[in-house]
Amino acid sequence: MSDALFEYALRMGDNCLILGHRVSEWCGHSPVLEEDIALANTALDLIGQTQLWLGLAGEIEGKGRSADDLAFLRDARAFRNLLLVERPNVDFAHTLVREVLFDVWHFHTLGALKGSSDARVAAIAEKALKEVSYHLQRSADLTVRLGDGTQESHDKMQAALNALWPYVGEMFLQDEVDAELADSGVGPALGVVKPLWDGDMRRLLDQATLKWPDISHVQKGGKDGVHTEALGYVLADMQFLQRAYPGAKW
Amino acid sequence: MSDALFEYALRMGDNCLILGHRVSEWCGHSPVLEEDIALANTALDLIGQTQLWLGLAGEIEGKGRSADDLAFLRDARAFRNLLLVERPNVDFAHTLVREVLFDVWHFHTLGALKGSSDARVAAIAEKALKEVSYHLQRSADLTVRLGDGTQESHDKMQAALNALWPYVGEMFLQDEVDAELADSGVGPALGVVKPLWDGDMRRLLDQATLKWPDISHVQKGGKDGVHTEALGYVLADMQFLQRAYPGAKW
Repeated sequence: MSDALFEYALRMGDNCLILGHRVSEWCGHSPVLEEDIALANTALDLIGQTQLWLGLAGEIEGKGRSADDLAFLRDARAFRNLLLVERPNVDFAHTLVREVLFDVWHFHTLGALKGSSDARVAAIAEKALKEVSYHLQRSADLTVRLGDGTQESHDKMQAALNALWPYVGEMFLQDEVDAELADSGVGPALGVVKPLWDGDMRRLLDQATLKWPDISHVQKGGKDGVHTEALGYVLADMQFLQRAYPGAKW
Repeated sequence: MSDALFEYALRMGDNCLILGHRVSEWCGHSPVLEEDIALANTALDLIGQTQLWLGLAGEIEGKGRSADDLAFLRDARAFRNLLLVERPNVDFAHTLVREVLFDVWHFHTLGALKGSSDARVAAIAEKALKEVSYHLQRSADLTVRLGDGTQESHDKMQAALNALWPYVGEMFLQDEVDAELADSGVGPALGVVKPLWDGDMRRLLDQATLKWPDISHVQKGGKDGVHTEALGYVLADMQFLQRAYPGAKW
């Protein structure tokens, strides 16, 4: 059980860490100032949540690894994030679509985790859910504004949606870790998040005049540590300081 | 004198290393297969020359640092390359213009170094010059073909030339290191490369129907270790393996 919860905490933490890093890459480069600040805030929220999840993972593991150790001293094979969150920013449409696809999943997953039988998990979920509710409100609003905006913004959003769709399925693949946590009431019941995500996403895409992509192929591997080339570059940037100056302190 | 030659060997080696890394980023992404192979070959030549120059630097320094140590274990402030070679690839026009601006300088600098009073320097220059003659032939040919090509290729080449022009001047700034090596006959005589570069470049741009940019501002700092943000990302990627796995061997 503690092995499964360690794995689960890594998955939740790594999703927040890698998406947070990707979003932080926009800092100082966003299309408008308001967006620059909103994206930086989202990134900060996600890095804060990373601290909680990876802190819990380190505590469960009991080998003295801190959240920082887990973030900065693991190599790609040991990361457990979904492939979706490591996809490159590309343009604002890709960044936004990646965000909304993840936010809807994140929102419902945290909603289920609020009722976890493990008090530590429930506490993290409750804190994170407040932030993620805001992330979702923002990314859903912008999806409607740009999907149902100009022809150009519509086309860019649809192209991003089509490009990222193969990475959606991995969010709903469930393995023995998910099953074990569902059994003990620590994790969400199996199959509970997908219908919620489907319902929300259908309504959102309708409102945004975007088409549900006709793509059933699922890219997977991230939850088991098999990543795309993109993650290596993220880690090289993110870990440089700690790799070059081991044990460096402020 | 040995301090100046150490510094000079770092400059020559770091130019090759950073440009070689930038060019290698195209591997598998070039516009056509022939170009992919040509770019990869250019990168390999430059990395080979890095080995010679940084090997010489380590030998002169006499502290037991190998070419690999110098390439993979220095931080940005210790790099001595021109800012020009760390500029991002952006598109094929930027990559090509960066190459031809550097190749003409590299060709004439190595030509002068072939007559160096230091036999080690003369030997490296003679070997490198054979490769760089080919780099220059290729980049000059392509500059003419794309500059005097379609309206689109012409515009992209001119835009790249204008964007990179502020980084040209640093190639011709000469400091006490250059002066000391010129005095002893180890380095090129002061002022000898610039008129050669100017003449070649004027003929080349004329033939390519490109305009000599009306930009006199000079971006500098690379030769003294003051770099742009771009170098940090290059080093993070390039040094990841050696930083994450210190002392790793094949």
